[in-house]
Amino acid sequence: MSVKTISVVQDLLATNKRAAAAIREELRRRGILGVNLLSSPGSGKTTLLEALADRFRDRRRMAVIEGDIETERDADRIRAKGVPAWQITTGGACHLEARMVGKVLGQVPAEIDFLFIENVGNLVCPASYDLGEDLRLVLLSSPEGDDKPAKYPQAFLSADALVLTKSDLLPHLPFDPARAAAEALAIKPGLRVFNVSALRGEGIDALAAYLDEALERLRSVRA
Amino acid sequence: MSVKTISVVQDLLATNKRAAAAIREELRRRGILGVNLLSSPGSGKTTLLEALADRFRDRRRMAVIEGDIETERDADRIRAKGVPAWQITTGGACHLEARMVGKVLGQVPAEIDFLFIENVGNLVCPASYDLGEDLRLVLLSSPEGDDKPAKYPQAFLSADALVLTKSDLLPHLPFDPARAAAEALAIKPGLRVFNVSALRGEGIDALAAYLDEALERLRSVRA
Repeated sequence: MSVKTISVVQDLLATNKRAAAAIREELRRRGILGVNLLSSPGSGKTTLLEALADRFRDRRRMAVIEGDIETERDADRIRAKGVPAWQITTGGACHLEARMVGKVLGQVPAEIDFLFIENVGNLVCPASYDLGEDLRLVLLSSPEGDDKPAKYPQAFLSADALVLTKSDLLPHLPFDPARAAAEALAIKPGLRVFNVSALRGEGIDALAAYLDEALERLRSVRA
Repeated sequence: MSVKTISVVQDLLATNKRAAAAIREELRRRGILGVNLLSSPGSGKTTLLEALADRFRDRRRMAVIEGDIETERDADRIRAKGVPAWQITTGGACHLEARMVGKVLGQVPAEIDFLFIENVGNLVCPASYDLGEDLRLVLLSSPEGDDKPAKYPQAFLSADALVLTKSDLLPHLPFDPARAAAEALAIKPGLRVFNVSALRGEGIDALAAYLDEALERLRSVRA
């Protein structure tokens, strides 16, 4: 990249960081846990959110901001679960930016517990953009292969937890969850790892408990 | 994006276009078909190239340029098939650019038939960068879901052929290949569609015949 390009990218990231800090402050003030979901296209982000909606029903209130290049489909799927959802279509851009989230934030009900932000399906670019979340989850589905952490390190380095999805397909694949976890932990020691099959509802309890703990921690700091 | 950002992106794309035109001219002059492979991470690009290496053995000569953010793993897999391969590691960048390919081109043997370029696993950014290829393949694996063409239109719009991979997993998935193809064809009428299972070697013959035809066409124009 040229010096001019690098300086423009740095400007973009600095502007994004300021917008993200404002969102983080606003969410913490309201006692809402912001969770940013990153993964390749088709790793199961929306299906995981549907499973969490079922799990939290009547116990925790959630809202979802959906990021996609085109279509309202994911927001429609979330709304069908009775969860408020906003679709951001980036119209070509490969990631969400904090200012896009900021524009929607005023419409998010004050009394929710979790605000999930499903990023554009892309294991590269979204990793560089803070959206003001308190927790970042990276998803890796078993069909993608257990070599992905080493090949796409930034997404795993920037995450708080790794969710290995589609574990129901493991009998049909060469995927080794232990190897995937080991590769991710080599990049980011301390990363929490969850194995889930959202379709079968397996592993969702442990993930929900982790989110609950993070929410309680956020609120105890605030109190 | 700001006016400044847009102008820098336009500069980048114009510079890339010039480098791509030089590569295209050089490949055509040598009678080599350049093929750019695009997909999400883990859609099976390398496994497809391994299957094509088996199919073309003793009949067509191929070489592979591998693009990844980190690691030499994919080039090693290709070399294990007896095929010359060069690994480009972008060190963070989300796509290959023509100048990266241009730097390797001098090392590619003159007597090959196909030069495959496996792009960084990313269904968004690589679509905007011409690498001087004559043919662009976009891969979509069955576990990713049949809704991806509508959500990531640019990759499908810019491709000549769609390769639906991992068809061996279809019995275990809600994926509908006909729906995926219909959504892609709505974006890009005339797109050629192939259903393959590289692991089982199914559908590779048809794809190899398509590549053969494109090579013959390239060489007949040149002659």
